[in-house]
Amino acid sequence: MDAKSYPSATEGEDRRVRIREVGPRDGFQNEPETIPTSDKVRLINALGRAGVERIEVASFVRPDVIPQLSDGVEVLHRIELPPTVARMVLVPNRKGLENALRERAYFDEAALFVSASQTHNKRNVNRTVEETMADVRGMGPRIVAEGVRLCAVIATSFGCPFEGEVPMGRVLDLAEQFAEAGAVEIGFGDTTGMCNPAYAGRFFATAIERLPGVEITAHFHNTRGQGLANAYAALEAGCRSFESSFGELGGCPVPKGSTGNIATEDLVSMFHEMGIDTGLDLGGLIDAAREAQETLGRRLTSHSIVAGPVIWSPGERAGA
Amino acid sequence: MDAKSYPSATEGEDRRVRIREVGPRDGFQNEPETIPTSDKVRLINALGRAGVERIEVASFVRPDVIPQLSDGVEVLHRIELPPTVARMVLVPNRKGLENALRERAYFDEAALFVSASQTHNKRNVNRTVEETMADVRGMGPRIVAEGVRLCAVIATSFGCPFEGEVPMGRVLDLAEQFAEAGAVEIGFGDTTGMCNPAYAGRFFATAIERLPGVEITAHFHNTRGQGLANAYAALEAGCRSFESSFGELGGCPVPKGSTGNIATEDLVSMFHEMGIDTGLDLGGLIDAAREAQETLGRRLTSHSIVAGPVIWSPGERAGA
Repeated sequence: MDAKSYPSATEGEDRRVRIREVGPRDGFQNEPETIPTSDKVRLINALGRAGVERIEVASFVRPDVIPQLSDGVEVLHRIELPPTVARMVLVPNRKGLENALRERAYFDEAALFVSASQTHNKRNVNRTVEETMADVRGMGPRIVAEGVRLCAVIATSFGCPFEGEVPMGRVLDLAEQFAEAGAVEIGFGDTTGMCNPAYAGRFFATAIERLPGVEITAHFHNTRGQGLANAYAALEAGCRSFESSFGELGGCPVPKGSTGNIATEDLVSMFHEMGIDTGLDLGGLIDAAREAQETLGRRLTSHSIVAGPVIWSPGERAGA
Repeated sequence: MDAKSYPSATEGEDRRVRIREVGPRDGFQNEPETIPTSDKVRLINALGRAGVERIEVASFVRPDVIPQLSDGVEVLHRIELPPTVARMVLVPNRKGLENALRERAYFDEAALFVSASQTHNKRNVNRTVEETMADVRGMGPRIVAEGVRLCAVIATSFGCPFEGEVPMGRVLDLAEQFAEAGAVEIGFGDTTGMCNPAYAGRFFATAIERLPGVEITAHFHNTRGQGLANAYAALEAGCRSFESSFGELGGCPVPKGSTGNIATEDLVSMFHEMGIDTGLDLGGLIDAAREAQETLGRRLTSHSIVAGPVIWSPGERAGA
């Protein structure tokens, strides 16, 4: 499969992408110190002012397991986002689903997840992939019946630090199972930054072909510096939905000390310079990331925090 | 122009790239403290052991202007590289050329340079672009007559922090002037990280078409995190020659505090994972970058220094 047979994202009319900001869940969860609720609310509201359209705001995990997110319900209640913003919550299991549905009025999308690698799923949630997917078949229709938009996330879609290669067919089979359970969007996560742009191009071209009608979302990590290269390759292969984290928040314990998510402001900067529309205000986004840096009191790894945007306006260069 | 009409680098037989390591000149020059000569020699020798095939080792600039490189001749004399390694020196002007030619036995390639932006060239070398190019017409044939491989570098090829957009036609006209003066390789530098992958694809496809017989080299910076995305796009457009810096050494004063060159080990990691051959030993390269980090006593921004290579062997994934 050659991603190049697909039309270039920079040539056609299809120049709009959707970006989900995952910093408030995926990023805040990985902070060594729990961020005070009022700081979380302030930062999420700043993201809303920057034009964020989709945002992952909470996870219904056990507070003793992830204390960094134990104030999830309070965050959901207190944030002030425009009504058009899609608020997503992560649902790890049946117990989490019961807790989530009690707060039904405060979110629009729910994400179920599995790791495509057996070893990684065991280490992450202490269940086999098959056990997790059996739960998905039970929870999915329940979520859909509540009028919640059902999303899915498949971790280690591009490689596992324990098992090595994860076959594309295995990942796409899981994606089809999610779609059968009612998921209308499926995100593929490069949990430890093992994807490369050649593979990203082939993968997303194939996924889009195999899952018609399902929104295909790319979630890359910048572990080896290739995050934006992978995003560009996925875009070229037809992908129009991405997840990223402001300030490049969100580390990953494997490999030790490495960075996690790609920075939303770096992704948006690249897209805008290419003439791709994101709906986001890059200046406001950089301000929010700088505010996060100040709140956390340490230097974040986002590039745009330091370099700022290029000086020409969005799209000017792409048409040159 | 659509770069996508060119064959994908990951599909055909043309899977070999050439990488020039520029850290010993471009990187060491930008260190706030001058690195002791013995440390420079040790690090350069480590790069040689990692399989570096091309390396920029010195610049014949005035020592009062760039004291960090004032030991250039001593470095040239003391390094121990395999005889197959192409050693490059930077020649900033006629005086530098005279000094360089006295050391003719110690290098293989010489680079002349200009900035495509009038303002940037004035600020960098205090001459107009036309004055610099007049010098090039004098120096080029002299260098070629000495049997030295003549290379050229065009800075701010993808945008100027002072002037904004730099037209592609202007850059390629300068490239043709260099070729007429005898240059067989021309590098295009993204001095302050203003390129994006869509433009990189169009630019390199056009440059390759307009300069037949000339080796076209991409020199990207990671200022806004897009360095590897640009390298991937250039590769896809047919570019097979790249410059990068081990440890991501080499900052840039504009924008203040931003990173400069892309890290050689991150570039090589991406290429190897894609099944592209570089001739380099990634493990040895990461070791050399870690040694540089230890020598300089500060955390470098290279990703592979922390994350290491992915666990599968080069090329294994690309064929999956």
